[in-house]
This record gives sequence, structure tokens and C-alpha cells, in this order.
Amino acid sequence: MKSDLNHLMEINNLDALWIIGSGQHNPAMVYLTGGGHFSNADLFIRRGADPVLFCNPMERDEAAKSGYAVRTFADYRPTELLKQANGDQLQATIARYKLMFADLGLEAGRLGVYGQMDAGNAYAVMSGVEAAMPGLNFAADLQGKILLAAMATKDEAEVDRIRRMGQITTQVVGETADFLSRHTVRGEVLVKKDGTPLTIGEVKGRINLLLAERGAENPEGTIFAIGRDAGVPHSAGASDDLLRLGQTIVFDIFPCEAGGGYYYDFTRTWCLGYAPDPALALYEDVKAVYQQIMTELRVGTVCKEFQVRTCELFEERGHATVLSNPQTQAGYVHSLGHGLGLHVHERPFFGLTSADDDLLKPGVIVTIEPGLYYPERGLGVRLEDTVWVRPDGVMEILAPYPLDLVIPVGK
Amino acid sequence: MKSDLNHLMEINNLDALWIIGSGQHNPAMVYLTGGGHFSNADLFIRRGADPVLFCNPMERDEAAKSGYAVRTFADYRPTELLKQANGDQLQATIARYKLMFADLGLEAGRLGVYGQMDAGNAYAVMSGVEAAMPGLNFAADLQGKILLAAMATKDEAEVDRIRRMGQITTQVVGETADFLSRHTVRGEVLVKKDGTPLTIGEVKGRINLLLAERGAENPEGTIFAIGRDAGVPHSAGASDDLLRLGQTIVFDIFPCEAGGGYYYDFTRTWCLGYAPDPALALYEDVKAVYQQIMTELRVGTVCKEFQVRTCELFEERGHATVLSNPQTQAGYVHSLGHGLGLHVHERPFFGLTSADDDLLKPGVIVTIEPGLYYPERGLGVRLEDTVWVRPDGVMEILAPYPLDLVIPVGK
Repeated sequence: MKSDLNHLMEINNLDALWIIGSGQHNPAMVYLTGGGHFSNADLFIRRGADPVLFCNPMERDEAAKSGYAVRTFADYRPTELLKQANGDQLQATIARYKLMFADLGLEAGRLGVYGQMDAGNAYAVMSGVEAAMPGLNFAADLQGKILLAAMATKDEAEVDRIRRMGQITTQVVGETADFLSRHTVRGEVLVKKDGTPLTIGEVKGRINLLLAERGAENPEGTIFAIGRDAGVPHSAGASDDLLRLGQTIVFDIFPCEAGGGYYYDFTRTWCLGYAPDPALALYEDVKAVYQQIMTELRVGTVCKEFQVRTCELFEERGHATVLSNPQTQAGYVHSLGHGLGLHVHERPFFGLTSADDDLLKPGVIVTIEPGLYYPERGLGVRLEDTVWVRPDGVMEILAPYPLDLVIPVGK
Repeated sequence: MKSDLNHLMEINNLDALWIIGSGQHNPAMVYLTGGGHFSNADLFIRRGADPVLFCNPMERDEAAKSGYAVRTFADYRPTELLKQANGDQLQATIARYKLMFADLGLEAGRLGVYGQMDAGNAYAVMSGVEAAMPGLNFAADLQGKILLAAMATKDEAEVDRIRRMGQITTQVVGETADFLSRHTVRGEVLVKKDGTPLTIGEVKGRINLLLAERGAENPEGTIFAIGRDAGVPHSAGASDDLLRLGQTIVFDIFPCEAGGGYYYDFTRTWCLGYAPDPALALYEDVKAVYQQIMTELRVGTVCKEFQVRTCELFEERGHATVLSNPQTQAGYVHSLGHGLGLHVHERPFFGLTSADDDLLKPGVIVTIEPGLYYPERGLGVRLEDTVWVRPDGVMEILAPYPLDLVIPVGK
């Protein structure tokens, strides 16, 4: 939680956070400012001090909504700095940061740097600043021990926002099922009123519209994959594919609040009309493992233990898994889930190599999403819900929805 | 254009490009791969050689849509690398890159690095790779002399996609005007059928729905700002604000293709019902300058010359500008426009300090968006169109739309 940040900075020996970039679709900045229509901003949070947000002068009103002290880059006379640097944008930028750090009294210390930015520019600017200010250094935090550790546990307001996104998500899933059901069948494919076949591209368009009606965004798209595509976990599905009866469809939907806010993440596997025996058998295996794991989740446990357990359960049922063969592309080929918040994937992680402090702590929100994939057989099944580990230790699915496999059509 | 890239790498002394990150909402990766549902990928383009795209094994099918050779990270046995690094994710990542660079035969050379990534991680990984492979170094390119220079000029297929987004944008603007017109007026504000006032939040919801119906995304939101907010160029507008007659509304809309594709950018200023004299006078000044500048745009000219000229034209009309006072927040306070493509703001730039090679080259697509802002008077006016500098030198507005100020309401 945000309230843990000061302590996390302290135990990780950080003097300040430097958050870079836009106020939209930029989790670190959205988390710490509340977001807004500003770009290329710099937020500085010194341990125990009031944050300061630097922005373009045109965007000062948007930045001020953060409630933080706002200063604009214009105060540093960027035109003159560029002239002094003989037109070298990098040197002018470094010179501006030097002045900003001096104004903040931050001429020495260890900083954590976060925020979405062009990788090459980040490297050029940060190495330049580090060279110009030998007292500063930047902590590497690939394991997310500071900001992402704070973000992993959610406060009540965050839970409410994610739950609301879950309600929107399951409403849209229900409407999508109804939409498919209303179609008629010709030659084993769904057709529209005009007799032409419905395509996956049209279904995805419908999903986006249903999300927009409810104020949600869908920046990462939807997985709606049928047949062989369903057998590859992250195949998004081909727009021109038709909706054939009796094939497994993996429908994985992960929208967020407008402007790049909190996500929800949800998967069901559907067969239109009927489920052939091989699809049904695979579904029953995934459902059984899903239900078993849900009963075994325990607050305070290391997440990867559940990944090991899921692999064992699938192997008992005769499926290859990443436990015995990390490179397998058939069977159970991914991890059990992940944390979810302002990133669709964030801490805690469940992979076999994830950290020992990726735990089911009270307050984390995680997906639980076992699946089985057999691309060569044209089959894939995944079931996913988003679960809040409540402070009282109860595992609460934030937006419950039936697990049903078969969607009746053409009635 | 993409076809310039090899030459731009050559004259800038680059041996290869390294593009990092997702296949969605990541302009560099979308530009060079066509985009797709893959995350955390690495694309390498050596000068004159076939590109190679590395991705997560689950995302191999999505990555393969690029048409490039695809390799998966699993080939580098990440679990063993992590074990060898005693669980240190950064060292394991650096070790993996070392193996990947060796496989590419890229153990020495000067690389341009692009793609959206967490700034701190970019710095940690790139400094680590540079330290581990002393033959490699990373070129700083804050001025966008390589990839962004190529992206600045558009081929016919790109122009068609941006034009299509322009058509969607102007359709949505027209529907928004009709939507406002259909409302009735009570006490100088628009009210809905149930008699309650319409809010800006509701108008923005409507805009998102109209965009979604047409398959567009709106990741950066819409500026729909009335009164004082209209007087601050990048104030997005307050959700709870009402639609009052006779106030200037700056409506700036910049949607993109789904998945983070090409943008369009468009602004009109509206007064509902009627325009008071001060609003009309300001509008006439902006329109006159807009129309004058449009006649003066010449292919091959340095963009900032038009910024100087715009300032002069506004100053002749008695307005303060950034030419005589770079810090002014009243009058003409921003630059005339910017390039537009997979970024809503990209090269060429028009600011007074923009580069001499920010030119109106044949093939560039730029916005032209003069405006005047008087926040203390509650007034702001901006007019913006997106213009393609055609190879024959003609300046073509990609999606023409009337400049009208007054939107009739309550008829």
C-alpha cells in the first residue's frame, strides 16, 4: 500500500523516488499522482518530505489535481539552457535536471527511478545526470522491491475500483455470450441476420463497444481465440476467423479504467453449441484443478508453491507441465497467475522462479488462471478469476461468474 | 519512411537498432513489426540484415505475424540463468542478453535503443549490458535523428491509415455537435430529457462510445474544456462542469487505431447557442492567423519559421506570444503544431527551439493549431487540422471540417 512506501524506501536504503512520464497509462505516475492529462512530467518524493511535481506550463492545472506542489519547466528557462548547450537537447536536459535537483536539495543520494519512457532516452538522460552529479546514484529494482512491493497490496479504495472493473468485465462477458447465442447457425458456423458469417473481428468490436458504454478502456486488446489459436496461450485470435461450433474458444478480457487506471483480468473457455468429448475432458481437468487450487490458497504462503502444486495436479492427470519440462509448449505451459492493479501483470508473481517474497499477503489481488493447451490438436482451455486476499484471510473472487463451457446458440 | 532507415543508420554511424517492449501502444515496436499481442519483446535490426524478434514462448504466434524470424527467450534457459545469478534478476537478464547478442553476432557496435519501458529498468539493464560487453555502446538520440527521422515522413499506406482516423474523428466531432444541439436549454445550461444538466463527463463518455463504434481507441483522453479551463491549453476539462451557453469550449480530440496505431489530431472551438463579442473577437483572430499560415506553408521550409511567423501575426493583433515572452501564460503560449503518426506528438516540431532539420519535408504529416488563451478572462480558442505535405508540395488537410464557432442548441 501507498502507506508502506516510506518504510520500503527506508529498508531499501533509498533517499528519494523519481517518477517520470505521462499522467496516463503510466502506472507509477498514476499511482502516486492520481493521474491526469499531463505528459513528460517529473515527480520527486523524498523520504518523509512532501512530493514535488514538475510539468510543462500548459499542463499545470492538470498536474495541480495531484494535490502536490507543482513547478513548471519554464522556471528553468529551457530556451537559454538549449542555447548554452549549443542546441544539444541531451546536455540541455541534463543541465535542467541539475538545476531541479539543486532546487530540491537533492544533490546527493540514492534514487529509485520509475515510469514509462523511451528506453534509449532513459539511459542517455540518467547516465548523463549521474555523470553530472557524482553524489547521485540510481538503484536497480528489477525485482520490484520498492514501488511494486507497495503497489502489490491494495487499500479499500483500490479494491473497490478493481471490483467495479470486475463488474463491468463480467457484464460485458455476459452480454457477449448473449450476443453469440442470438446468432443462427449455418454449416456449423454462426451467421448474422444477413446470412454472412460472424467473424472474431466483429465479436471483438462488439466487446470494445460494450466496454466503452461502461466507461472502460481496452488498451491491450482482448484474447478471443478459437481452434489452434486457443491452444497458444497468448494468441489474440485472428480477426477473420469464424465462430465454429464445438471448438474451444479462449476468451481472456483485461480492460482498465479510462486513462490507464486499474485493470481487471478474467478468462472463460467456451464451446458454441456443444462440446466434443476431447474439449470437455480438457475442460473438466482445468476446472477440477482450478477448484482444487482455490480451496488450497492460504494467506501468507509463497505464491510459487501454488504453481508447483498446480503442476503436480495437472501431471497427476497426465499432462506435461513446466515443472518437469520448462520448455513444453503442450500441456500446462504458463504460471498460475499474477498480481493485478494499475498493471495487468504485477507483483506478486507465481512463476517457478518468482521471488520468495511474492506472497499471498493480506491485501494482494491476484489472478488464478490454470489452463491446458494442445495447439496441434486445436484445443486450449483456461479459466481465470481475479481474487482479493482479504485482510481476514478469505479469498474473495471480486466478480463471480459461471464457469460454464457450452454457450447455447441458434435457439 | 521505413525505407530511409538503413541510410539514417549509416549516416548516424549505427550498427543496429534494438527495440524493446510491447507490440501495442509502443510506437517504435508497432512501426517496425506491425504490432501485435506480445509484451517484453526485443527486436534487433542490424544494418542491412534481416531483423530478428525475440519474445516469450507463449507469444510466438503473435510475434510471428511480424514476418520476421522469431526466437523465444526459452531458448536461453532463463531458469538456469537465474539460478547461476543466485536469483538476481538483473544479472540473469544481462546474462541472457549476452547470449542473445552473441547469437546475433552483435558483440560489438553502436546501437540505437528505442521502445517504451520502465525508465529505471532501462537504465539498469542497458548499463549492465554495456559493462558486460565492452564492445557495445548505446547512442543517445534525444533529437530523434534516426528512428524518429524515418517515422516523420509517411508512405502512402500510412497516409491512408491516418486519413481514415481523420474521417472517424470528424464523424465523431459532427455527431458530438448534433448530440449537443439536440439538448434543450434551461437557465443558460444544456439539460437532458429528464431535466437534469448535461455534464462534460457525459459528453466525453459519448465521444468514447462514438469512437469505439468506429473501432478507434482514445488512450490519451479528450480535451473538452469550457470557460477558464478552455484558457489553459492542456486542461482536459472537469467532468462535473456544465455546458453553459456563450462560453468558449476547446474540443481537442486525438484518437488512435486500436492497439496503439496511427493517431489523428483535431481541434475546434465552440460556443453553444451564441458567441459573446469577446469570444467572437478572439475566434476571429485565431481563424485569421490559421488561414493566413495555411496559405504560407511551403514544402522544404524549417518548421520553426512558421512558429515565428505565427507569433508575429498574433502580435500584430495585440496578443502576447512566446516570441517576445517565452514564459507568457496569456496570449499565444504554445507552438504551432507537431508531426503526427504512431505518436500523437512526433517530429517535425514547430517550437522556437526545434531543430533546423525539423522541416516541412514531402511526406510529413503535421498539425497546424494556433490558439489564444486568456484564463483570467475565462476564454480560450484553438483551431487545429492535420495536414499532409504531399510529394507534389500541396498541403492537404486529411479530414476537412467546418471551422464554425457557434453550435445552435435548443431549436
